[in-house]
Amino acid sequence: MGKIFVFDTTLRDGEQTPGVNLGMNEKIEIARQLESLGVDIIEVGFPTSSKADFEACQAASKAVGKTVAALCRATLPEIQATYDAIKESKSPRIHIVLATSDLHLEHKLRMSRKDALKTAIESVAFAKTLSRDVEFSCEDASRTDPEFLQEVICQVIAAGASTVSVPDTVGFCLPDEYAAMVSGVIAHVPNIGNAILAAHCHNDLGLAVSNTIAALRAGATQFEACINGIGERAGNCALEEVVMALEIKRELGIAHNVDISKFSRVSARVASLTGVPVPLCKAIVGQNAFSHQSGIHQHGILANPLTYQIISPQSIGRQESAIVLGKLSGKHAFASKLERLGYAFEQPQIDALFADFKNVASKKREISDDDLEALITNRLIAGNEFYSLESFQIQSGNKMMSMASICLVHEGNPFTEAALGDGPIDASYNAISRIVGGEWHLASYDIKAVTEGVDALGEVVVRVRHNGQDYTGKGLSTDIIEASIHAYLNAINRVMATTSPV
Amino acid sequence: MGKIFVFDTTLRDGEQTPGVNLGMNEKIEIARQLESLGVDIIEVGFPTSSKADFEACQAASKAVGKTVAALCRATLPEIQATYDAIKESKSPRIHIVLATSDLHLEHKLRMSRKDALKTAIESVAFAKTLSRDVEFSCEDASRTDPEFLQEVICQVIAAGASTVSVPDTVGFCLPDEYAAMVSGVIAHVPNIGNAILAAHCHNDLGLAVSNTIAALRAGATQFEACINGIGERAGNCALEEVVMALEIKRELGIAHNVDISKFSRVSARVASLTGVPVPLCKAIVGQNAFSHQSGIHQHGILANPLTYQIISPQSIGRQESAIVLGKLSGKHAFASKLERLGYAFEQPQIDALFADFKNVASKKREISDDDLEALITNRLIAGNEFYSLESFQIQSGNKMMSMASICLVHEGNPFTEAALGDGPIDASYNAISRIVGGEWHLASYDIKAVTEGVDALGEVVVRVRHNGQDYTGKGLSTDIIEASIHAYLNAINRVMATTSPV
Repeated sequence: MGKIFVFDTTLRDGEQTPGVNLGMNEKIEIARQLESLGVDIIEVGFPTSSKADFEACQAASKAVGKTVAALCRATLPEIQATYDAIKESKSPRIHIVLATSDLHLEHKLRMSRKDALKTAIESVAFAKTLSRDVEFSCEDASRTDPEFLQEVICQVIAAGASTVSVPDTVGFCLPDEYAAMVSGVIAHVPNIGNAILAAHCHNDLGLAVSNTIAALRAGATQFEACINGIGERAGNCALEEVVMALEIKRELGIAHNVDISKFSRVSARVASLTGVPVPLCKAIVGQNAFSHQSGIHQHGILANPLTYQIISPQSIGRQESAIVLGKLSGKHAFASKLERLGYAFEQPQIDALFADFKNVASKKREISDDDLEALITNRLIAGNEFYSLESFQIQSGNKMMSMASICLVHEGNPFTEAALGDGPIDASYNAISRIVGGEWHLASYDIKAVTEGVDALGEVVVRVRHNGQDYTGKGLSTDIIEASIHAYLNAINRVMATTSPV
Repeated sequence: MGKIFVFDTTLRDGEQTPGVNLGMNEKIEIARQLESLGVDIIEVGFPTSSKADFEACQAASKAVGKTVAALCRATLPEIQATYDAIKESKSPRIHIVLATSDLHLEHKLRMSRKDALKTAIESVAFAKTLSRDVEFSCEDASRTDPEFLQEVICQVIAAGASTVSVPDTVGFCLPDEYAAMVSGVIAHVPNIGNAILAAHCHNDLGLAVSNTIAALRAGATQFEACINGIGERAGNCALEEVVMALEIKRELGIAHNVDISKFSRVSARVASLTGVPVPLCKAIVGQNAFSHQSGIHQHGILANPLTYQIISPQSIGRQESAIVLGKLSGKHAFASKLERLGYAFEQPQIDALFADFKNVASKKREISDDDLEALITNRLIAGNEFYSLESFQIQSGNKMMSMASICLVHEGNPFTEAALGDGPIDASYNAISRIVGGEWHLASYDIKAVTEGVDALGEVVVRVRHNGQDYTGKGLSTDIIEASIHAYLNAINRVMATTSPV
């Protein structure tokens, strides 16, 4: 049974989902989750895109004991800087991308094929002087002239590339077309046996998973994907769907190192930390994936689960949210619970989390694992608070104007304002904007309950537009107004913390 | 170029999405949207599942000038009742489903293959006495013994079935496996030329679209799918993804009657009316489907959109939300706008909508098409209000208890209550529960902004559990608390309106 490599790019291609920007703590936490899942390679980011991402990539790459990849364009300074970001990881992989299709060369790069080939070879050769592990991606491979694609691949392997990826960058292929490209490379590139050949599919026509499986059957030995299928436009290939198909279809003889019992948790953590919710009907990890509504189906499931279910919820680690702690639980029980969930926090962090826990436990009878994870997310995203919330008060009704008063603290000094608004959240945001100053545009607002029940923790995710850029903010509270205020402040604090690009 | 039939089952298999229950007005509206989209067959429901669905199917089937299908099990009384529900449509299709896999026959139906075959033949023959258009679905076809499957298909066609469907009920197949089943049927069923052969795929492994395309390439002449890919578990095949793939891949030579420029609107209307949001990264119709985040991509798109985009947002009818009306717009402009959006309301409905519009326009500067559609949804779902909201008032803050007072009206009488809560929504729901009495469990809570901006209309969707069943409630307001109260009341009113099963 041939074993393939699973290359996760949630932290790089997944982070390109509009509105997602992951801070250092969030990248570290997701990288650790991916490590526990057992993926073979973790791509941590695009370090030269900004100083903040450089530092986040550096921190995440040191936090895990896996091969760590980082993306760069085919220029020597970018390659050097990218290597610097991940060189302290256990096993750094420099991932160079260069378009090979005439469309991209002509319109985006304004380069001839000859120059592109030369650039590719020189980049890989230079990267090879830094790291033994170099991946080269032929961007827009599926729209590249097959002979030129094969020539580029042959030459970069000769120059030292240990992995070559052939992305379907615009999600354009049918499975047989994508498989034919892979077969063509295998048949016509004489030194292909010296490198890993990787599939990288986008989902613009809803075919990313199918195309990836077709490529693996055609002989690709690595696939690149994101948890929950997040990414630019319609997203990347969903990692959990490909792995699950390989599990269900053992007869394909394609093995992997992924621990499928971690899917439920890793999916939930990625959704929470990126702020991109898992679609209700998402395959494998969606909330409804194992729900049966119609009477006929419910009858069948009771008679024999196999009638309507090919995957058991238990196999992906899905379980009823366990009740673990209550308001009488002490710090020792709390700390050991964190440990059992796999976290290794320092004492000050544990103290801060314990205070959060006590605060929630005073309002909510039972604290589940999901609640705890939400509190941890909340701490991870907090980062440096430029402004923090001291207090707020609202008055509202359908036969009166809504009014909010807010007190924020900045560098130890309180700032208070009041404002009217259409509803209490609008009033609160107006009062905050008065304190902060400048233009703030609320582009989207979402809230969901972390667990069931009237006393549930509510998680608010906002996208705030400022100077033409979207920033995601998250807030958590049992009170929807408080969660909304925290989310808005979190987005504003992110803007304040944003450092200029390298 | 061979033309295939597009069979939409949003109102039947799509309605099986957990938590979705569509009332009569909602079914009529979605059926009309599907008609404008140009699908060939509209499946309106499962009429014998309840009296309410019988009536909704009856109304929806009369509202459109298309072939209308309705599902039933293979018993003569169900077939008769199902035909009665749709017989006044332009062209009624009775859709009979019977499982053919040994697993289903043995564990769910406790039937021998011989009895199943006999039941299938008798059912189709009886249905044929009522309608010339009869479809027979071999449930769990993909796990059925191929020879038995082919025998059943041959016999039901001989008995008069004009369409035969071979569902991948549990979403278990790879594309080549599903295509092989279709090819097998075409090769070994001698009278297959007398019937339409339909693909029906589920998305449990993320392969529904790919499997459907594979089936069409293997010779299937109909496919069955839902808008936005909704449905039980991981959902059904997404109609818009298959059609878009056929558009992009003209060389497959598979033609259809769908007007792709309607996708954006129909998708949004289905999401709003079912309460199942379109995932952000959903192919074709997701909010992010045409968004480019990374600098490299943005640069490429500016140079030439084809670098990163194979479908234009305009082609599916997506446009910046048009600003159409303001607070000074009169009733005439309003009515003609409704007409241009394709609605044909009676005067009392127009008056009610105009009042809603004026109410919003007093709080929101510009009213877009999306805002108007949300107001229409809100009216459609309102139905009979067992309880209606007269007034509410809240007081809340992070250093005080939240308090709500509520006044509801039932049969002309006011009922008032006050309650504390953890946050203003919890307090409001507690006050409502005190008035209504009984056990109400909030299973989920979601809110999103209909359009951008601080004065946006907020749409709240709740799932409320009562006596073990989930009910969806929706509410709309520029005030989040008011929208939340309306959503909770809407769910409670649905429970009150639920009639017992036939």
